[in-house]
Amino acid sequence: MHTPSLMSGSSQVEIKLGDRSYPILIGEALLGDPSTYAGLPRAAQALIVSNTTVEPLYGASLQSAIKPHFSAVHRLSLPDGEEHKNWEQLNRVFDALLENACDRKTVLFALGGGVVGDMTGFAAACYMRGVPFVQVPTTLLAQVDSSVGGKTAINHPLGKNMIGAFYQPLRVVCDLGSLKTLPPRELSAGLAEVIKYGPIYDMGFLDWIESHIEDLLARDPQALAHAVQRSCQIKAEVVGQDERDTGLRAILNFGHTFGHAIEAGLGYGQWLHGEAVGCGMVMAATLSERLGWVDADFVARLRRLVDRAGLPSVGPRLSSVGNAARYLELMRVDKKSEAGEIKFVLIKRPGQAEVHGAPDALVSEVIDACCKA
Amino acid sequence: MHTPSLMSGSSQVEIKLGDRSYPILIGEALLGDPSTYAGLPRAAQALIVSNTTVEPLYGASLQSAIKPHFSAVHRLSLPDGEEHKNWEQLNRVFDALLENACDRKTVLFALGGGVVGDMTGFAAACYMRGVPFVQVPTTLLAQVDSSVGGKTAINHPLGKNMIGAFYQPLRVVCDLGSLKTLPPRELSAGLAEVIKYGPIYDMGFLDWIESHIEDLLARDPQALAHAVQRSCQIKAEVVGQDERDTGLRAILNFGHTFGHAIEAGLGYGQWLHGEAVGCGMVMAATLSERLGWVDADFVARLRRLVDRAGLPSVGPRLSSVGNAARYLELMRVDKKSEAGEIKFVLIKRPGQAEVHGAPDALVSEVIDACCKA
Repeated sequence: MHTPSLMSGSSQVEIKLGDRSYPILIGEALLGDPSTYAGLPRAAQALIVSNTTVEPLYGASLQSAIKPHFSAVHRLSLPDGEEHKNWEQLNRVFDALLENACDRKTVLFALGGGVVGDMTGFAAACYMRGVPFVQVPTTLLAQVDSSVGGKTAINHPLGKNMIGAFYQPLRVVCDLGSLKTLPPRELSAGLAEVIKYGPIYDMGFLDWIESHIEDLLARDPQALAHAVQRSCQIKAEVVGQDERDTGLRAILNFGHTFGHAIEAGLGYGQWLHGEAVGCGMVMAATLSERLGWVDADFVARLRRLVDRAGLPSVGPRLSSVGNAARYLELMRVDKKSEAGEIKFVLIKRPGQAEVHGAPDALVSEVIDACCKA
Repeated sequence: MHTPSLMSGSSQVEIKLGDRSYPILIGEALLGDPSTYAGLPRAAQALIVSNTTVEPLYGASLQSAIKPHFSAVHRLSLPDGEEHKNWEQLNRVFDALLENACDRKTVLFALGGGVVGDMTGFAAACYMRGVPFVQVPTTLLAQVDSSVGGKTAINHPLGKNMIGAFYQPLRVVCDLGSLKTLPPRELSAGLAEVIKYGPIYDMGFLDWIESHIEDLLARDPQALAHAVQRSCQIKAEVVGQDERDTGLRAILNFGHTFGHAIEAGLGYGQWLHGEAVGCGMVMAATLSERLGWVDADFVARLRRLVDRAGLPSVGPRLSSVGNAARYLELMRVDKKSEAGEIKFVLIKRPGQAEVHGAPDALVSEVIDACCKA
């Protein structure tokens, strides 16, 4: 497929998955530039799925940029937030597609953060058993993690991302300009997924994040560009080796086992996903320390960075009595669990992660040590 | 993967799809025989999804046959009928999986007809982004068509099978004994999909069906065995060349464009899917005749066979005024439609089908000619 020539200042990362390969475009002012979409298929219709926060900011701009490819471009705005990542809202995408008699060539565009990307991708995977889609992530979290790699899903009341598909987009468009409008809390949430790549894969990148955390929080364009690019490179390397999450890819879930329990236990939308992951990484690092794999300095270093990024590093209580038991109960419904045994992504040594089980008693100790009294 | 050695009287058809290849086992008394399931993965849990009609007949038998592979085998019974092939019932499968803390290795078994198979397959495709499943079709329609080839889906109020996935089972188990308990109306509905293979692919098979239609209606074991086996062979040849329905596979939808309009227009569950397809084939053959591709004798021959199979050959009125317009409106939401143009599977010459558009005026004439006054 023909892909666009990049403007100066832009960069490109390739996800290599055979005939499902695609580029991630990273740069300023990409979203509204028609050349960003060069080479995408032409069709009768397209549907931009966004949310009520992002759509007023970028919906019209994206619509006019992609217009040359389609006879009609429709727009649909879903409510904002993880608590809306459910079947009911997903079905609104199907309603919009069917009410407009959209055919199998229709292209979906996901314009927004991780929730919009996951839902739109899953809708694309299922509509008429699969239509093409493009990711246009507008949050840091979506640009560095969720829009890349083809994991799509909705939540079920009993577990996060339990219903979904592996379904790759045609292209990912990371417009760094859209990060300027991101609320501070969402910027911090995105940094959790940036920080993640250090302990599991690249301690040199962790060093860089530590020395540039203030620049990142101040939204320095060059710092953000590097953070997004390096994060996407690492994700591309991991996903390229294990698209369907049967081995290596699980390391990208560092902090997510504890994090998913926090999100489900508090109710989706109370803590942002990135906030729960930030805190979850500290808990997973603490568990790694208790197993003797990393030292206390490593955990302290990670906790300090999580704090500096504006993320919570102390876990919430999910139950006034039996808090650890509640965490364990929620974590048992994780996709990594096998035959009832919870699997954690742990740090074997700095820069290298492994998936392991751990005794419930030890995990309970870690929860007690890491949660609010 | 190790596959079972077959008992005498049984046969096997291979679906060849690279690493997604699998066998269709056809024979008497397979369902309750543990050796039928030899070579399937072992896991902590399995879930048998069935319906309230089939589950009391075969649920316990299947459960005990597969027990050696799993620590626990759960059973779930959904309401019977096409009108229940919706998100609400699909979600009951997810509820059952999550309430039992079923992990990613869990194997689903679809025990029943086309609705159970399509829903269970789609649930398997989506649960934790994909768990393995086995088709155990107990209706003729499911054995000769819907359980084979990996098309899974649920209906949307605005269109049939609009939300789904291509997702292949590990194995298909066609127990001919289960056809003994099939209500006559369902037997006839299954014969529609058997008859289908003649006009589109193999006129010799159509000759055979014509000369054995009484045996099939009398459930003669040898006649049923041949009908299932030859149908599965043809389906395997077609699906093996076009798994994802981008070309040849569409011919398997002969009669389905008109048929889907009938099902949606009357309300799902009023006519059985096979009944709508039977009538739809007569309408599609009539359209082929109007285009000059087949002669009136061919259409009359097909209509006679549809009649003899106990299927309706005259279309229902979907609207007291503007009946043809209502058919056209419903057919425009077909998955084969492109840019608003309805595509039909038409008979180019006996034994060979092609996908084509046709002028609305001509289609309206055919509808008027083929429907109740």
